[in-house]
Order: sequence, then structure tokens, then C-alpha cells
Amino acid sequence: MPHNKATPQDTLDKLTLALDSGAFVDVRRMLNGLPPADIAHLLESSPPKFRNILWKLIEVDLEGEVLGELSDDLQADFLSRMDAAEVATITESLEDDDIADILQQLPDRVTREVLNAMDYQDRARLERVMHYPDDVAGGLMNTDAITIRARLTLDVVLRYLRRHEEIPEMTDNLIVVNRSDQFIGLLPLRTLLVADPSATVREMMATDVDPIPVNTPDDEVARLFERNDWVSAPVVDDSGKLLGRITIDDVIDVIREDADHSFMSMAGLDEEEDTFAPVSKAAPRRAIWLGINLATAFIAAAAINMFHDTIEKVVALAVLMPIVASMGGIAGTQTLTVLVRGIAMGQVGKNNQTWLLTREVTIGFLNGILWAAVVAVAASLWFDDWHIGLIIAAAMMINLVTAAFTGAALPLLLTRFNIDPALAGGVILTTVTDVVGFVAFLGLATLFYA
Amino acid sequence: MPHNKATPQDTLDKLTLALDSGAFVDVRRMLNGLPPADIAHLLESSPPKFRNILWKLIEVDLEGEVLGELSDDLQADFLSRMDAAEVATITESLEDDDIADILQQLPDRVTREVLNAMDYQDRARLERVMHYPDDVAGGLMNTDAITIRARLTLDVVLRYLRRHEEIPEMTDNLIVVNRSDQFIGLLPLRTLLVADPSATVREMMATDVDPIPVNTPDDEVARLFERNDWVSAPVVDDSGKLLGRITIDDVIDVIREDADHSFMSMAGLDEEEDTFAPVSKAAPRRAIWLGINLATAFIAAAAINMFHDTIEKVVALAVLMPIVASMGGIAGTQTLTVLVRGIAMGQVGKNNQTWLLTREVTIGFLNGILWAAVVAVAASLWFDDWHIGLIIAAAMMINLVTAAFTGAALPLLLTRFNIDPALAGGVILTTVTDVVGFVAFLGLATLFYA
Repeated sequence: MPHNKATPQDTLDKLTLALDSGAFVDVRRMLNGLPPADIAHLLESSPPKFRNILWKLIEVDLEGEVLGELSDDLQADFLSRMDAAEVATITESLEDDDIADILQQLPDRVTREVLNAMDYQDRARLERVMHYPDDVAGGLMNTDAITIRARLTLDVVLRYLRRHEEIPEMTDNLIVVNRSDQFIGLLPLRTLLVADPSATVREMMATDVDPIPVNTPDDEVARLFERNDWVSAPVVDDSGKLLGRITIDDVIDVIREDADHSFMSMAGLDEEEDTFAPVSKAAPRRAIWLGINLATAFIAAAAINMFHDTIEKVVALAVLMPIVASMGGIAGTQTLTVLVRGIAMGQVGKNNQTWLLTREVTIGFLNGILWAAVVAVAASLWFDDWHIGLIIAAAMMINLVTAAFTGAALPLLLTRFNIDPALAGGVILTTVTDVVGFVAFLGLATLFYA
Repeated sequence: MPHNKATPQDTLDKLTLALDSGAFVDVRRMLNGLPPADIAHLLESSPPKFRNILWKLIEVDLEGEVLGELSDDLQADFLSRMDAAEVATITESLEDDDIADILQQLPDRVTREVLNAMDYQDRARLERVMHYPDDVAGGLMNTDAITIRARLTLDVVLRYLRRHEEIPEMTDNLIVVNRSDQFIGLLPLRTLLVADPSATVREMMATDVDPIPVNTPDDEVARLFERNDWVSAPVVDDSGKLLGRITIDDVIDVIREDADHSFMSMAGLDEEEDTFAPVSKAAPRRAIWLGINLATAFIAAAAINMFHDTIEKVVALAVLMPIVASMGGIAGTQTLTVLVRGIAMGQVGKNNQTWLLTREVTIGFLNGILWAAVVAVAASLWFDDWHIGLIIAAAMMINLVTAAFTGAALPLLLTRFNIDPALAGGVILTTVTDVVGFVAFLGLATLFYA
């Protein structure tokens, strides 16, 4: 029956209370009654101190699954305190791609020990997955696909399935292979259940689905799943041999991570950044980003300094100059954001770059006219000097058009050099808009007031 | 066989060439050979002019599915040019939730006409879905679930399924209901295919899955799917009556939109923003955001103006002041970004808010010390005046701590008042860091140099 399910946040609040009062028995019972993903969420939502207590209270046979659901940062943290035997026990129940992810976080020595502690079959299967980096199809796949041959009748397939203890989760298709294990088609369970049992697999299988080449980048895998509404898809090597299958749950992780990446990068942060990282971890990471921005701030300051004498004569310039720079930053960031998203979604290519660039510059120009007029009036009234109004209006126009052009051209250029535009774009952009803003405004003022 | 599949971008480039050379017949053939989601992607990746030509070349019986895959903005655009009869024809082949989304975009008059053009059953089913806003479980559901009764044997269920022409896509479970249509459990196809055919549904069904209440917010639905690795899930009303089911493809759209929302909001943009919106649409939307930021820039300017006389005396202050403000903005944005993501992921609650706030202020303080020291040395050397070094160091400390506190407290506060922290947070934050940065630096300087 539907009931008002407690949200994880409620559970966490309750657990915190119980922990605070030292009622560990209650905490242990509550905790181990939750699905592994919820336990992982609780760990990720807890400050470090609670996190360690909670981890110790989790039952050993749940630890593997919980670990598989954690972010890389946290996985590494917990793993670093285990020895090879513990890791081997804990990961036993996991899917190949999850074990591979975990093993790849460990020092090579430990990984080898863990692999040695496994039986031959498990090891061979795992090594197949670990062979691939985790950002291509090969690193996302499992080897649990059920394969069948095309000459069988559906009736035989049904009887074959009945001999299984269990069909793997997220199995929507059986994979049809030839005698060299090459992919030739898919037999959806949906078809198997309604089609005539005397028909053969060959007659009923779907052959219009292209399998995923093992080296396909993970974001391309995600796009394929999204466009085709797949639940699972076969992965093949260059010769068409079936290597495994990818399931939608792993694809969702890719989608989340990619989206997180764009969002966090704009602030110089890593998508794996742990929300509750201790100060000792978070502070140094952020410090680097602040340092880079400090260097660019000094560049902007140097630009201002060129007009030292003019500012001395007309202090109003110092009052107004941040307006020009900041408006450029905002306009440029808007353009940059639209382009970064468009590139991430695979919408931007050779054929539409010029159109986009032209549109952005046009928008910059039109909004430049609008807000330059407003600023001109406001500044003229404020300082009772219509010259300064004209000067700031002209500088604003120059900076908004520059901002639009830079915001659009920069991500296109950075992408071409394989530099992440979400990470590097913002810093370069604001440096440009600051410098151009200050130089345009103070430069024009110098021409006039000198 | 695997082959190097042309990427959509390649296809688009080829289409553009063909369009440019007026080879419409080729374009029509290429276009209509693509899956609907790819056609939708092409439309979304095209400037308006091409878009309209492409749309006209799509075969009528594909139009509905293509429309269902488009973003709201583009849907509305194409729909506005159709009459009710066209809309009714086009949407016939779609799933309920997609039709409901489309109809909700139309003027009420047209929606009524479209509904009237449908047969009674379709209309009744649709009205059930349209009854709910599209950001809760009810708005995401379809009514195509296959339901069975608990007393049947699996053998009977198998024969019952065989009477279906087709089992709906993404069917991983049959839904078990009682005679009042209330949800009582799920029978996975995986179980049906391996379990003893003489067993009853009641014996084999899973009863540990909670159905989704119809008014559950869509982001909560997404979290449930992610945590439980669901492919589909039943939706029920308050009395436990089954209303429909949600499938993972619609959940992925929710995940994408939520992530997009956070990313775009930070630049004052809407997640539905069309990458290729014409200037006439994009410029006014952006202008509003620029206007809001202009107002805050004037507030910062007014803060500077209070120290007019001090700047006149020491122009170096005007040169250095943007450094203090900009470092505050960067540090605050980092904190804001971490908090906004944490809130979006449901990680932040009463029990850890204080911990987070304390950690952020501590980080602000530590990085404040670090970079204040660097700035102090740099400024002292530059202007050959160690007083100015000390003043800027103190101002930097004050601003970085303020930035950390504001960046953390602001999203918590805004969320409590149901204001979107990703949208409003950035503007308020940079206003605070600008004003505090300028006032701290120029104020301290005034105390010293006056």
C-alpha cells in the first residue's frame, strides 16, 4: 500500500539523532534495513566523522554493493583502509564494471593481489573489462549477457531459459550470436513472449540494431541509449565479436556525471568533488582555482594602472569602471553557457558555427545598444556630465560585442584543442571582458579628458 | 556488423550541403531514413531557416514521434502553425505522457478540439494523464501497463500474454492488482520466464516494491529510479489504485532537464532555451538578466563612490580594488556551486547544514590567509608601499570569509523560501562580494590615509 515514505533526509536526521545519543544498536538495525543505494546516499550526505561510524555499522555482505554506489572519491577513501582479502570478499557480489571501477582505484600491487584471490573464471572475465578505460563502452559493460543461436526455435529458447536459476537484471533482449561469437541480432523478451513458439530465432530477431563498438566514448554511448530508448545494448570488438552488454543504470551514471562535470567545471570544481569533503581536502583544491583567478585579476589591475593619471583627474571613472567590466562578464558568460551546453549535446558543428557566432554578436550588439543607452543616461545624471555618459556607453557597446564574440568563439576554439571549455572558458572569458572593459572605458576617457 | 557509424553531426553536415545545393529529394530520403530521435536532434541542431525546410521534408507519419522528442520551445513553435485536426493526426502514435505534454502547450481552445477529434477511449485515457502537472509522477506516466491478478498461475499468465499482439516497450514487470484495481505487487518477466509454470502469481510476485504516489515530484521519481535501478514503476493514487506506470526513458529526460536547469540558471538562462533560437527570441530573454545585473553593478558603484576622496588621494586603490571584489566572487561562487549541487542531490538537510557552513567558512579563512599573504607582497612591491599591502590583505580576508559564509548560507535560505538558488544565488552573491570587497578595501584605506 502507498504510504508516506520517509525521505532519505528524514532517515538521516533520525540516524543522526540516534548516533548522537549513542544508540548504535538502533542505528545498525535502521541502516542495514535500507537498500544499498540509500545507504550510499546517507554516507555521501554525512560529514566525515559520521561517515566513518556509519561505515563500521554496515553489515559485511552489504559493503560491496554500497561501495559500488559511492562516488570515486569516497570509494578510494574506504578502500584505502582495507587489505586485498577484504576487497576481494566485498566485491564478490558486484557486477563486472563496478568491480573494475573499484579495482582501478587501488594501487597496482593491491589490484593484483585481489585478482589472485579470485577464481580463474572471475579473473578472466574481470580482466576483459579492466582492459578498457572506464570512459569508453568497454569500461561500462558487464559480461552477464544471455546469448542464443539463430537456428533455435523460440520454444527451445524458452526451455533453455527455464534451466537458468535467474535471468540477469535489466535483461530486455537475448543476444543472438553466430558460432564465432559474432553479434548478429537481438531477440527481445517482448517478442519471445508473444511470438509463435515454433518460429526460429532467425525469423523473429531484430537485426536493425547496431551493436556498440567497444571503444565508443561514454558520452556517445549515453546519446545512443537516449535516442533509441534502449534498456541494454550489446558491445562488440572490431571483428564484431560480442564482448558484453551495457545496461541503462550505468548509462544514467554517465549522464549524471557529464552534467555534473559541466556544472562544477564552471566554478573550477571537479564533478567527483565530495559535498562533505573535509577542509584538508577541499581547501587545497579550491586554492589552486583562486590562484589562477588572482593572476588574471592582476592582469586586469595592470590594465587599469595604465590609466593612472586619467583616474587621478576624474575619479568618477574609478566609480563607473566596474560596471563596464561586470556587464561584459555577464553577457559573455551567457553566451559561453549556451555554447558549452550546445557542444556537450552534440548540437554544434562546422555547418552552424558561423550562424551561432553571428547570432551571438548580433545579440551582444542589440543588448549593447539598449543597456548603453540606459547607462549613459544614469551616469550623465549621476555625475552631471554627459561626456562621461557618452564614454561609458561607447565602452559598454565595445565590451558587450567583444564578450559575445569571445563567449562564442572561445569554446569552439578550446574544443578544437581538446581543452574543456567549461573549465577554462570562464577564466579566459572574464579576463578578456575585464581587460577590454577597463581599457575601452579608461582609454576613451583618456582621449577625451587628456 | 559494426561499422563506423556516421555521427549525427556528419549527417547534419551532409544534409546542409544537400540543402544548399537544392537537392531536396536526396535530403528527404536521408532524413526519413533516420530514427525519429535523430531527426529531432537534427532539427534542434539547425538554425531556424534550415529547421523549417527540414520540418517540411519529414513524412507525416514520422512527425508525431519527432515532435515528441523535441524540446518544449521547438514543439510550441511547430505546433503553433498546425490546426487541431493536424495535431490530432500527428499525435495518434505517441505515448500518453508525450501527447499530454504536447497538448498542454496548445491554447485551451485547440486542446479541446484535438480531444474532441479522438475516440472516447483515447480521450478518457489522456484526460487521466493531463489531470496532473508535468512535473509530478502523474504527468510522467503512461497507461499502457499490463495488469494481472494474483490468483492466476504463471502458465495462465503466459497464455494470456500470447493473446497480445505486442507487449509495450520497456515492460520489465507485469503489475499485479486486486479486484478494486489496487496495486499489490510486481511479477518480473525475468521471474515469469524461469519459475515453475504451475506456481501462482501470488507466490512468485515481488511485494517489496513501493509504488509511486501520483503526486510525487519528478526529481524524487528520478531519485527512486536511480537508487533502485528500475526500468519501469507503477503509479498509484491515494487509495492505492493503479493509475499507470513510469518508464526509464521519461525519467532520463527529467534527469537531463534538472541538470540542465542548474547549469543554465547560473547564467540566468532557461533550461528549455533553444541553442539556435533566433535573435528576436534570445535577445530579449538575455536583456532582462543583463538589466538585473546592471542594477547590482550600480549598487557596487555607489559603494565605491562613498570613498571618492580617498581614491583621489591614492589612485593605486582604484587599480587594486577589482582584485578584492573578484576574488570574493570566485570564492563565493565555488561555495555556492557545491551547495546548489548538494541541495539538488538531496544531500543537504538540517543535520549537516551547520557542519557545511562551518567547513566553508574555515576554507574561506584558510584560503584567505594564503592569498592575502601573496597579494600583500605583490601589492607592496608593485606600489612600493607596504601599507597598501597590509590594507588589501585585510580586505581580502574579510571578503573571502564573507563570500564563503554568503555562498553557503544563501542557497540554504533561498531554498527555504522556495526561491531557486541556482538562478537568484549568483546575482545576490556577487552583489554582496562586490560591495563588501570595495567597502572593506576602500574603508580600511580611508581610515589609514585620511
